[in-house]
Amino acid sequence: MTQYKSPIRDIQFVLHELLGIENHYQQLLGNDEVNRELIDAVIEEGAKFSENELAPMNQSGDEEGCHWDDGVVTTPKGFKEAYDKYVEGGWPSLGGDKAFGGQGLPSSLGSVVSEMVGSANWSWSMYPGLSQGAVATLESHGTEDQKKVYLTKLISGQWTGTMCLTEPQCGSDLGLVRTKAEQNDDGSYSISGTKIFISAGEHDMAENIVHIVLARLPGAPEGTKGISLFIVPKFNVKEGGANGERNTVQCGSIEHKMGIKASATCVLNFDNAKGFLIGPENRGLNCMFTFMNVARVGTSLQGVCAAECAFQGALEYAKDRLAMRSLSGPKNPEKEADPIIVHPDVRRMLLTQKAFAEGGRALCYYLCTLADIIDLSKDEKEVKKADDLMAFITPIAKAFLTESGLEAASYGMQVYGGHGFISEWGMEQIVRDARISTLYEGTTGIQSLDLLGRKVLLTQGQLLRNFTGLIETFCKENAENEAIKELTTKLASLNAEWVEMTMKVGMAAMQNQDEVGGASVDYLMYSGYVTLAFIWAKMALVASNKLAEGSDEKGFYTAKLQTAQFYYRRILPRTLAHKAGLEGGLACLMDMEVDNFSF
Amino acid sequence: MTQYKSPIRDIQFVLHELLGIENHYQQLLGNDEVNRELIDAVIEEGAKFSENELAPMNQSGDEEGCHWDDGVVTTPKGFKEAYDKYVEGGWPSLGGDKAFGGQGLPSSLGSVVSEMVGSANWSWSMYPGLSQGAVATLESHGTEDQKKVYLTKLISGQWTGTMCLTEPQCGSDLGLVRTKAEQNDDGSYSISGTKIFISAGEHDMAENIVHIVLARLPGAPEGTKGISLFIVPKFNVKEGGANGERNTVQCGSIEHKMGIKASATCVLNFDNAKGFLIGPENRGLNCMFTFMNVARVGTSLQGVCAAECAFQGALEYAKDRLAMRSLSGPKNPEKEADPIIVHPDVRRMLLTQKAFAEGGRALCYYLCTLADIIDLSKDEKEVKKADDLMAFITPIAKAFLTESGLEAASYGMQVYGGHGFISEWGMEQIVRDARISTLYEGTTGIQSLDLLGRKVLLTQGQLLRNFTGLIETFCKENAENEAIKELTTKLASLNAEWVEMTMKVGMAAMQNQDEVGGASVDYLMYSGYVTLAFIWAKMALVASNKLAEGSDEKGFYTAKLQTAQFYYRRILPRTLAHKAGLEGGLACLMDMEVDNFSF
Repeated sequence: MTQYKSPIRDIQFVLHELLGIENHYQQLLGNDEVNRELIDAVIEEGAKFSENELAPMNQSGDEEGCHWDDGVVTTPKGFKEAYDKYVEGGWPSLGGDKAFGGQGLPSSLGSVVSEMVGSANWSWSMYPGLSQGAVATLESHGTEDQKKVYLTKLISGQWTGTMCLTEPQCGSDLGLVRTKAEQNDDGSYSISGTKIFISAGEHDMAENIVHIVLARLPGAPEGTKGISLFIVPKFNVKEGGANGERNTVQCGSIEHKMGIKASATCVLNFDNAKGFLIGPENRGLNCMFTFMNVARVGTSLQGVCAAECAFQGALEYAKDRLAMRSLSGPKNPEKEADPIIVHPDVRRMLLTQKAFAEGGRALCYYLCTLADIIDLSKDEKEVKKADDLMAFITPIAKAFLTESGLEAASYGMQVYGGHGFISEWGMEQIVRDARISTLYEGTTGIQSLDLLGRKVLLTQGQLLRNFTGLIETFCKENAENEAIKELTTKLASLNAEWVEMTMKVGMAAMQNQDEVGGASVDYLMYSGYVTLAFIWAKMALVASNKLAEGSDEKGFYTAKLQTAQFYYRRILPRTLAHKAGLEGGLACLMDMEVDNFSF
Repeated sequence: MTQYKSPIRDIQFVLHELLGIENHYQQLLGNDEVNRELIDAVIEEGAKFSENELAPMNQSGDEEGCHWDDGVVTTPKGFKEAYDKYVEGGWPSLGGDKAFGGQGLPSSLGSVVSEMVGSANWSWSMYPGLSQGAVATLESHGTEDQKKVYLTKLISGQWTGTMCLTEPQCGSDLGLVRTKAEQNDDGSYSISGTKIFISAGEHDMAENIVHIVLARLPGAPEGTKGISLFIVPKFNVKEGGANGERNTVQCGSIEHKMGIKASATCVLNFDNAKGFLIGPENRGLNCMFTFMNVARVGTSLQGVCAAECAFQGALEYAKDRLAMRSLSGPKNPEKEADPIIVHPDVRRMLLTQKAFAEGGRALCYYLCTLADIIDLSKDEKEVKKADDLMAFITPIAKAFLTESGLEAASYGMQVYGGHGFISEWGMEQIVRDARISTLYEGTTGIQSLDLLGRKVLLTQGQLLRNFTGLIETFCKENAENEAIKELTTKLASLNAEWVEMTMKVGMAAMQNQDEVGGASVDYLMYSGYVTLAFIWAKMALVASNKLAEGSDEKGFYTAKLQTAQFYYRRILPRTLAHKAGLEGGLACLMDMEVDNFSF
């Protein structure tokens, strides 16, 4: 089995050479505390922790899974010990508010660490990962007292957090939430109801668990406008912060599922559990968006992690495994066959993985720099610009990078041939673990409706034009650059087509709102391919400049240019299918009567 | 969990209305013994057996898996009992040679049963399924004596068979086989070596197992021209057919794998095991092709099974699950939300599944009628025609129907949202079980090389033109039929494009043989979409004729037409991406130096 190795060189390329991260941090923080030395040290330590502590438990964690016994959940061997080390190392507090014990580093740096941690062991990463959303929610919407009691311990990692949205009858449609909250005389609330699919909802890794729960107050309006948000700790917290008595929230069972088996997916039963309101009554969904945005960017990263791990495994095998001769003549005549990396179709699979992994990484990190601006910038105009861009790109990144991550993961198995299906090689686990990524935190269909319906059409195309404007400027500025002319020419043309296509969909949707749903996934995938093309063109520009400057890392930069070229020539043409598919229209989706689907 | 229900109406549509199977059988057999009554009775009994005996063990078999203990393999609870009933019911002998106890029915009828059996429980179906290849090999290449001893018991189902090709160092590249065979004084051979990935290689369901084994004789030429084929029984056979002493072939272990967990995938160690040559020395690979063709068509069916099962599960859920309102207004106002089948994107997924399942079924059955002709026709010209068509279509069916089956299976999970990831719903098992189908019996890459390299370019395009000629004739004959004009117009244009594209690839390949590998998978997928478009146009023609005649099954035929239309408008545009991807060329695959793939 291929052991995960952090792609440090590529991470540095994106952070330093593509995004100019040092300068970005210094502008936002107004000082030079977060300099290159610190950044690289964080990456290096994060890489070590991921490779040495987490990767070795990835396969064993999958085999062992989590165990439930009368409400108590035991995580796989080594998980708790690794978590203790993670806390000792100060990792949970990286991006936390300094006022509550955090190190106050920009969240993008934490995301880089999250990528490495998640690649090494996605299941493990979900325990601290869920806390990040709870932290963001409390930072934005918690009272000072709530922050003091809960945030401090979440930031230190002493406690972990969860996100309790889903119920048996509702997932995407949170308007159907039935969990009830009734106010007690002391100002607290009694929460009752059943939540399902709660990741890290119960486990043995931390002293206490802070559940962030959606519930309805008595007489609240129906639907999404009548939902409030509550803190419900596993153990009630005594004055001074120590654990008090056990709250009446119990883990009823954990799910048996396709993958991420070492991550406990819990049914939580709230039986008059004591909770505390976060934010205003009936505005819970708005507060929850903070949480959901963090989670969506985190899930985009899961696609990158899957692509990276599958690429590493497939590349190693493709260099080692001997089978058949190159059709253009033996490349390894002294052996009985050539390594399979000589075969063009094996290279097509490897390059697809590489294009998705490296392109996805750059897109995610770029998104994280927007989040930094939203969090830290004092310039309102800049914040608004970043916020609009982030709102537009997030559903694209979440859906497109998880879908492409799955494709890359599947190629990981495919390069191994029949061995890819065998557990010991580790490739099939990547597919099983990654398969959840297009389902949770909003399915691909939900992201697509969010993109096309809410972000594009509801803003009359403004958010789209903000982004295509950036692309247009980039293409114009580099139109005369011969090194990337093939890319900019193609990109400019697709960029214009994107806007035109959007206008057509918008016109159709004015006649019939269902047109949005009929077009949405093809629209999102088209958008994803173009967005990644923009990222690849930007990376190609950096690489070609470095080569022109006579860099001594010729192989690295040449590979960047070649991967960009591969992406443009062999992957980007998929936009043709999505555009034509979308133009296939709505009627052929809606005409069939429900009873006629099957006989 | 959705229980599998055999799609009898659709099976009958394909057999009777599309393929005119009764007439086809009568022409081949020269009598009317295999009439509609018999055909429908076989389908109905096969459906009952599949639904009642096999489907209920599908999930439990996955959970329990197979167990290995010191060379003995135990299959999951109920597997042996179901196999006994299968044998009692005479199912294994359906297509067998009458001279050796078979019922002599055309193999296509057996394939219909195989579809239902495989949909109900793919893992179980592999035990009798592997026997079919052994039967075909012995029927074609066995001596009379070998047939009497082995074939009779394989046909009755008393024994099962295997196919021992793969070794640790070779899968696709059988030229690297190392297993040795040395002749003994009594004319038998001593076989020594290790075979891996042997499905049904050891189990507790039958009295004896007949291994068909590839091995090398001393001094045989290197590569594929030095491989011979042997029968190696698990128990040596005594005069009269009873089991003699245990042969020295042992199951060293079974694999832990992503899916088909109830199918034992064995490592077999041959230690001077007694074997018998089949066919001429060093011609083993040619004899094995008989086996491999049967297996490839069988694996195509696995794609259909996956699509059908995932469609059934997703459709049931989409009708039941309530979430959100239709964007064009409530469709279910008395309930708190609409069933998700109102949402266009859910319909897109369901219709994709339906188009692949029903189209794939028709393509497979068509292929099976070609196999009937090859087996049974006395008309040499007709046999040659069928053989050429079958040679051309088989790699397309194997690769395209398994790839599309996987896509359909994945949509099964996607329609369920997060629930799709949970084992109890059964959708994730379909994906895990189906994932092997693009790997075994020749990966998608291998099928693509077979199609483009061997079948198309090596015949100077003759096999392609045979098939595109059929499509051209069909389009011309129906050019004036308004009911399917949208389809025939599009099909005729793609058909012409297919030939043009092939010529371009052929020209490029004359300069550089690697062009074949660079184009192959895109070429195959393009071919698959066009081939399925042909099948859907034919089905649409039948359906529109029935509607014109005033059929009282208006819903059924209307759905056929609508599915065809959906396929043409929303799926077929993918040809654009494959054509443009292929035209992206070879250079961007080959330019990168091996050391530059990763840093």
